[in-house]
Amino acid sequence: MHTEFPADSVGLVSPQRLVFDQPLQLSCGRTLDSYELMVETYGELNANASNAILICHALSGHHHVAGYHSPDDRKPGWWDSAVGPGKPIDTNKFFVVGLNNLGGCHGSSGPTSINPATGKPYGPDFPIVTVQDWVQAQARLADRLGIQQWAVIIGGSLGGMQALQWSIDFPERLRHAMVIASAPKLSAQNIAFNEVARQAISKDPQFMQGRYYDADTYPKVGLMLARMVGHITYLSDEAMRAKFGRELKKGKLSFDFDVDFQVESYLHYQGEQFSTSFDANSYLLMTKALDYFDPSRDYQDNLAQALSRAQCEFMLMSFTTDWRFSPERSREIVEALVEAGKSVSYAEIDAPQGHDAFLIPIPRYMELMRAYLDRVATEIAQESPAC
Amino acid sequence: MHTEFPADSVGLVSPQRLVFDQPLQLSCGRTLDSYELMVETYGELNANASNAILICHALSGHHHVAGYHSPDDRKPGWWDSAVGPGKPIDTNKFFVVGLNNLGGCHGSSGPTSINPATGKPYGPDFPIVTVQDWVQAQARLADRLGIQQWAVIIGGSLGGMQALQWSIDFPERLRHAMVIASAPKLSAQNIAFNEVARQAISKDPQFMQGRYYDADTYPKVGLMLARMVGHITYLSDEAMRAKFGRELKKGKLSFDFDVDFQVESYLHYQGEQFSTSFDANSYLLMTKALDYFDPSRDYQDNLAQALSRAQCEFMLMSFTTDWRFSPERSREIVEALVEAGKSVSYAEIDAPQGHDAFLIPIPRYMELMRAYLDRVATEIAQESPAC
Repeated sequence: MHTEFPADSVGLVSPQRLVFDQPLQLSCGRTLDSYELMVETYGELNANASNAILICHALSGHHHVAGYHSPDDRKPGWWDSAVGPGKPIDTNKFFVVGLNNLGGCHGSSGPTSINPATGKPYGPDFPIVTVQDWVQAQARLADRLGIQQWAVIIGGSLGGMQALQWSIDFPERLRHAMVIASAPKLSAQNIAFNEVARQAISKDPQFMQGRYYDADTYPKVGLMLARMVGHITYLSDEAMRAKFGRELKKGKLSFDFDVDFQVESYLHYQGEQFSTSFDANSYLLMTKALDYFDPSRDYQDNLAQALSRAQCEFMLMSFTTDWRFSPERSREIVEALVEAGKSVSYAEIDAPQGHDAFLIPIPRYMELMRAYLDRVATEIAQESPAC
Repeated sequence: MHTEFPADSVGLVSPQRLVFDQPLQLSCGRTLDSYELMVETYGELNANASNAILICHALSGHHHVAGYHSPDDRKPGWWDSAVGPGKPIDTNKFFVVGLNNLGGCHGSSGPTSINPATGKPYGPDFPIVTVQDWVQAQARLADRLGIQQWAVIIGGSLGGMQALQWSIDFPERLRHAMVIASAPKLSAQNIAFNEVARQAISKDPQFMQGRYYDADTYPKVGLMLARMVGHITYLSDEAMRAKFGRELKKGKLSFDFDVDFQVESYLHYQGEQFSTSFDANSYLLMTKALDYFDPSRDYQDNLAQALSRAQCEFMLMSFTTDWRFSPERSREIVEALVEAGKSVSYAEIDAPQGHDAFLIPIPRYMELMRAYLDRVATEIAQESPAC
């Protein structure tokens, strides 16, 4: 049990569930008459509401970004390393907002929520949601919180895609977009890995066409396989070599189909853990949101044209050994922004950890994030009436 | 129906099943009292049996390397592009031998064979076989065919590993080893992908602990998933981009969990096809043989020391966009050979196709293979008593 939290922790925090009653028109053509968003905030909104940072989560993230929900929590929020008093995303300076996106399984409306039309969980009937839909829902959240303009919208991976979409859909509502380890759209290979994950889930006999809540089954094996294959793409070959190499679990080869290598054991553990903590229908939705993301689609497949709508400044970051969304993909965005005449900074961080690097407090990465956000904080302070 | 075969085809060929009655001691400690090998040959063995080439197959290959089994065959053998009269592996000059390895599912002894102890298919009781075991069995095959020394042993991927193992285990029995798109041992990432495939198969409820023959079930879904994930690693990101990009199957997004992108449809097809033509227990065995391969294991983890036993000349080839066994892995072998004082040629072929490139008649690749083998043919002809 924690008797006290570290000095640079946001400490004990509580999420709140916000209800939105105004219908939300979705990209798929359907409408959610009402929905709920699970939200967590850290720091204080200043008088003119100019110091708000929105943190958009990736595939398996949620609203619990930093701090602890209970003194007994063994682990803090998923990005506690970056968010807190004195940390790069400094809660002494910024009002930081995390949320669980629509379709998620951490308290916001999603497949596990009750469908008012049936009185049962939505399951597979929850509509396919897109990054654009999320941005719409996040804009309503900003209204609710009294934030006309975000100081910064930050996201890694799928989270970075949301920051990018914000800059196009609500150009006047953010000053800075920080897009980390992301891509302008998925490659065929990215989609292929997602489809393997979806097939693993949907072909699991316990999936029951997504109605496993009613059937009292759960596609645990499918979700485990999905996470295993996903996890391989999050780590670099280099990181796996350094972490596991060909180390044997029992010191010698089994000569049967038992686990032989440590890396197998690690993957089993990751898959197993995830399969008990994530909803399978949500996983399907998140992967479709990834596949569908393509902000250039409505702009003649021209990303520069799509981004020409943006009014914010951009900070892009990528990691050298990330092969899920390689530096090349970030550079595509940077080039499109330059072509569109936007202000863009870019850093390629030397890091062996692969895609996962964006969640790890790598010193150079944290330094650059801090430097960028310190500049933003200074900007805001200079404009603030209190100054 | 083919009324006639192309002039550079080996034409109509017939495999033969050879029975070996001498017990084979395996790496796992078990013994196969007798076993069968399915074999196919092309061209003619010369008077002093000095012109024989052994072709070792990869994960899903077999003995049917070139030509047609019937005039109605729609497709020739798996490496017909390289093997035939006048082709790089020239059957006018060489006697070419293909076989299905032990544990396979194309006629050689394997999990689908009848276990003499039970009168039922071996299934999961077929022993784990290693690359070393295969080489032992192939050496017996050489004895049977009257081949004291192979002119060349050629293999791509897992096939290349067999060529490498031959050079260590039977140094005096081959003159040349041609090792293509291979690796000195699997990386943690390689093993991780194999383990996902194995889990997909063994966790399929229809797998029945490998006794699906008795149960009259088949782990079709597991095998399909295994092949899908495998297939992604055989293609380069670049090749998938060129072949599919983000092309949509039905011209627009489905907004349901149907197939949206062409690449998904392609992967389904590949998985489906494979799952109806390959045995699941054999797939498990083949992936274990890959994982276990490490010729340096018995030589203080020193590959150069292992290869110092070799007496043959080596030709290594790799392909620029292969990320399953990248050029770097081939260069590790080349460096170890140089360190061991061996004669080694190396070519890195510029090819967008990824690992699959080794099966494709890329002009530069075929030219180099032809040039190398022409030199070997000349060597042999000069030594031959008939000259």
